[in-house]
Amino acid sequence: MLGRFLTYFISWTILGASSLAIAQSTELLTKSELKQIIKLRDSALKSNLGYDILESLTTEVGARMAGTPQDTKAVNWAVAKFKELGFDKVWKEPVTFDTWIRGVETAEVTSPYPQSLHITALGGSVATAKGGVTESVVHFETLDQLKAAKESDVKGKIVFISNKMERTKTGKGYGAAVVVRRNGAIEASKKGAIAVLIRSIGTDSHRMPHTGMMAYSDEVKKIPAAALSNPDADQLERIFKRTKDVSIKLNISSHSGPKFTSYNVIGEITGSESPEEVIIMGGHLDSWDLGTGAVDDGAGVGITMAAAKLIKDSGIKHRRSIRVILWAAEEQGLIGAFAYADAHKNHLKQHIVGAESDFGAGKVYQFSSLVTDKDLPFIDQMEKVFAPLGIARGNNKATPGPDLIPLYQIGMPVFRLSQDGTDYFDLHHTDDDTIDKVDPEAISQNVAAYVVYSLMTAQYKGGLVRPKQAKK
Amino acid sequence: MLGRFLTYFISWTILGASSLAIAQSTELLTKSELKQIIKLRDSALKSNLGYDILESLTTEVGARMAGTPQDTKAVNWAVAKFKELGFDKVWKEPVTFDTWIRGVETAEVTSPYPQSLHITALGGSVATAKGGVTESVVHFETLDQLKAAKESDVKGKIVFISNKMERTKTGKGYGAAVVVRRNGAIEASKKGAIAVLIRSIGTDSHRMPHTGMMAYSDEVKKIPAAALSNPDADQLERIFKRTKDVSIKLNISSHSGPKFTSYNVIGEITGSESPEEVIIMGGHLDSWDLGTGAVDDGAGVGITMAAAKLIKDSGIKHRRSIRVILWAAEEQGLIGAFAYADAHKNHLKQHIVGAESDFGAGKVYQFSSLVTDKDLPFIDQMEKVFAPLGIARGNNKATPGPDLIPLYQIGMPVFRLSQDGTDYFDLHHTDDDTIDKVDPEAISQNVAAYVVYSLMTAQYKGGLVRPKQAKK
Repeated sequence: MLGRFLTYFISWTILGASSLAIAQSTELLTKSELKQIIKLRDSALKSNLGYDILESLTTEVGARMAGTPQDTKAVNWAVAKFKELGFDKVWKEPVTFDTWIRGVETAEVTSPYPQSLHITALGGSVATAKGGVTESVVHFETLDQLKAAKESDVKGKIVFISNKMERTKTGKGYGAAVVVRRNGAIEASKKGAIAVLIRSIGTDSHRMPHTGMMAYSDEVKKIPAAALSNPDADQLERIFKRTKDVSIKLNISSHSGPKFTSYNVIGEITGSESPEEVIIMGGHLDSWDLGTGAVDDGAGVGITMAAAKLIKDSGIKHRRSIRVILWAAEEQGLIGAFAYADAHKNHLKQHIVGAESDFGAGKVYQFSSLVTDKDLPFIDQMEKVFAPLGIARGNNKATPGPDLIPLYQIGMPVFRLSQDGTDYFDLHHTDDDTIDKVDPEAISQNVAAYVVYSLMTAQYKGGLVRPKQAKK
Repeated sequence: MLGRFLTYFISWTILGASSLAIAQSTELLTKSELKQIIKLRDSALKSNLGYDILESLTTEVGARMAGTPQDTKAVNWAVAKFKELGFDKVWKEPVTFDTWIRGVETAEVTSPYPQSLHITALGGSVATAKGGVTESVVHFETLDQLKAAKESDVKGKIVFISNKMERTKTGKGYGAAVVVRRNGAIEASKKGAIAVLIRSIGTDSHRMPHTGMMAYSDEVKKIPAAALSNPDADQLERIFKRTKDVSIKLNISSHSGPKFTSYNVIGEITGSESPEEVIIMGGHLDSWDLGTGAVDDGAGVGITMAAAKLIKDSGIKHRRSIRVILWAAEEQGLIGAFAYADAHKNHLKQHIVGAESDFGAGKVYQFSSLVTDKDLPFIDQMEKVFAPLGIARGNNKATPGPDLIPLYQIGMPVFRLSQDGTDYFDLHHTDDDTIDKVDPEAISQNVAAYVVYSLMTAQYKGGLVRPKQAKK
C-alpha cells in the first residue's frame, strides 16, 4: 500500500506542477465517461433504493443510540445490508467509548400554576438527587444574560434559558443557538445553579423536546441539564410574564454507563485502475434514542449506500474505489470519525476526497468544492452534470460534514452537497425523527447527487488537492 | 319566571301565526340597531380579548380533565374570570359523574424488531394485567375487517386497527373514523381479543397519540384500549408488511375513580326588555389531560366570554339576556350538557337559540340557521352583517354543537358558526393542543362572529322557532 501511495503522490506532484493552474484535458472525464454517468444519474432518480434502505434501517432497527443494544443491532444490520447489496468488501472497525444512559426525565411547575412540562435530558447530563428536586427558577433570555447575572440571583436555583433558534435553509441558525445547549450547564454552574433547563434547539412548535450533547467543565460542578419542548418553553415564558416567583420540580436519572465497543461499518466497491485510492462518502449509523433516526441520519445511510450500489450494478468501471463509511457514535462527539482518522492517518493520501450526507432528507441544492485552480476545469465538468438535478455550483470553500472533520483536519479534501435544511431542525434529535417525514423523491435526488459526486471523482485522473490555505 | 315564560310563548304563537311566512318588518332589526352591531363587530376584530382569555386559561390552569384537581381549578378560574370581566350574573350548576384516572401507558414491539411505540390510553379504558401483557398482534385495516374475521384469528391476541382519518375542512372525516375508537374494544372483545390498539383518530404525522372516549358493552368483556400515534401506526404497518408474526408488550394502568362534582359555569349579561329570555353561547371548560386544551376547547371559552364582554362594554342595550355557558365534562360524554338540559327543561322556551364554539381556533367561514320561513328575513339581515367577516350563509339546517345536543333534542333552536377545521384534528386530544397553534387574528374573527350572532338574536323581536321537521 505504501508503494502505491508514493507513486500516486509523486505523479500528482509532477502533474500539479507541470499543468500550473489548468487541468490537462487528459485528466478530465471523456465524453463517453460523462455519458455513462449522466445515464446512471437519471436512472438513480427513478430508483427507490435509498428510501428502501432507510425504511429497512428505521423499521428493523429503529432508534440506535451509541452504546445501547440497538447500536449493536444497527451494526449487524449494516454489515448484512452491505453484503446483501453485493459490495466488494465489507468490514467493520472498532470504536470504544464511554456510554450515557437515559433514565427518568420529568418536570413540572409546582408553583404558581402546577402543570407538567415536556422535557428531555441533554446527552451526557448527570442526574438530579433521587426523586427529583423542587426549586425556584430564574429566567434568562440568552446565555449572555446568564453570564452577566449576579451570582446571588442564580445560586441554588434552576436556570431557564429561553433563547430561540432561527429557521434557515442552510442550518446556520443551529450554530448560533446550540452554544446554549453545549455551555448552558457550565455557565449556570459557574453561578451556583443546581440545574439548567433550556428551550429546545429546534424550529418546530410541537411538544417534543430536542436532545443533543452538552458539555461539562472540570472547573465547576456538573449539574443536570434538560431541554423543554418549544411549546413548553413558551408556556414557562408566559408564566414568567405573570410572576417571577416560579418553582419547578425536576427529576432526571440519566447517568454514565460502562465502556462499549461499536463499529464504523464500511462497504467498498473496488476501483478498476487505482483500487487503493478511495472516494469517501457515508452517513452516521447511530442516532439519538428518541426517534428512529430517519432524517438524522438514516437518510445519509440510505442515500450513500444506494448510490454506491447503483454504481456497482451499472457495471461502469471506475478507476478508484468508492468507500461508504457508516460512522459510529457521531452524536456522542464524532467518536467513530476520530477513531477512523486515527486508524487511517498513515493512508491519508489514498483518501482522495470525502463527502458526508448528514443534514436530513431535503433535496441537494448546491455543491461546493475545495480544490486548487488546476482542478477547476473538472469542477466545471461536475457543474454541468449536477445542474439537471437542480444543484447549483457553490463556492470553492467546502467545509467537511461532521464525521469528515477529523480527516479534514489532517488534510483530506472534501466536497459538500448542501441539502435544504429548512425543516430539518423541526425533527432533529426528537421523537418525531421518523420516516413519515421523508419524501422518497428527495432521497432519490440525493442518491443521484452522490452517484455524480462519487463516480466523477472516482473517474477523474487529476489529484484533487486541497488549496494550502484550507489545510488546518 | 313561569309567568313571563307564558307571556312570551303566547305572544310568539300569535306573531308566528299572523305573519305566515314573512317576518313583519317591525320584528327585524332597525337600521340604527344594525349600525351599532356593525360598529361593535368591527371593533371586536381589533380586540385581543378572546385570545387573552384563552391564554389565561391555558397558562394559569393548563390541562383540566374532568374529575381531576385541575377541573376544580378551571371552575374557580371561570367564576373569577366572569366576575373580573363584569358579567351581570355569574353562577355555577353542579354536575356529578364517575371519573376515569389515567396511569401508566406504554407499548413496545417485543418481536421481531424490539422498539418502543408511542401510545395513549383511550378515555374509559380498563387496565391490562399489572406489569403489562405481551401477546401476538393481529392487524386489520378497518373495523369491518375485524368484524368479518374468524374468532380463531383474534382470540387471545392484541388487535391492531390501522384505519386512517381523512383531513377535511368540515371535520366529516372525524365522524367516519371515530367509530373505530368508540367501538374498537367492543368488536375486538367479541372475538376474544385481549386488548385493542387503534391508529389515532387524527390527521397529523407527529408522535403524539390522540386520546378520546371509547365505549364498552355490557355483553362482552372490557378490554384495554389505546391509540398509537400516526407515525407509530405507520411503523407497525411497515413491520406487518415484513412479517405477520408480531408481538407487543402493552402496559396500561388506567382505571375508574370515585364520583366527582364539577360545575357548568355560567355568566350572563342581562337583557333590557326580556331578560328572562336568553341567547346561549359557550364552549366546554374541561379538556383532555394531555395538552392544555387550547383548541379543544379553550378557544370556545375565550371566544364566547370575550364576545359577551365586548357587548357588555359597548353599552348597547339588548332586549334579551346573553348567557355564556362553560360546559363541564364534555369530553366524558356531554355530562354537563345533559345536566343543564335536565335542570332547565322547564324553562326551555326561554332559551331562544344556542350556538357552541367547539371546533378549534380556525376562522368561521359559514353560518347556518334553523328557523321557520317566517324568520328568513331576519336571517337575510344576519347574512349581510356576517359577510364582511368572510362568513357566508350556509343552509337552514343547522345542527347543534356537542353541548347543545341535549337542549336541541328537547326542542331548542340552534345556529352553527362553522369554523375551518382543516388542521383541527392535527391537535385534537393530544399533548400538542397548546396555544402556540392558535392564530390570535382568527380568534378575533370568531369573537366578532359571536358578537353578531348573539347580539342580533338578542335584538330580534321575532321568536326564532325551529321548523317542525327538525324537532327530534
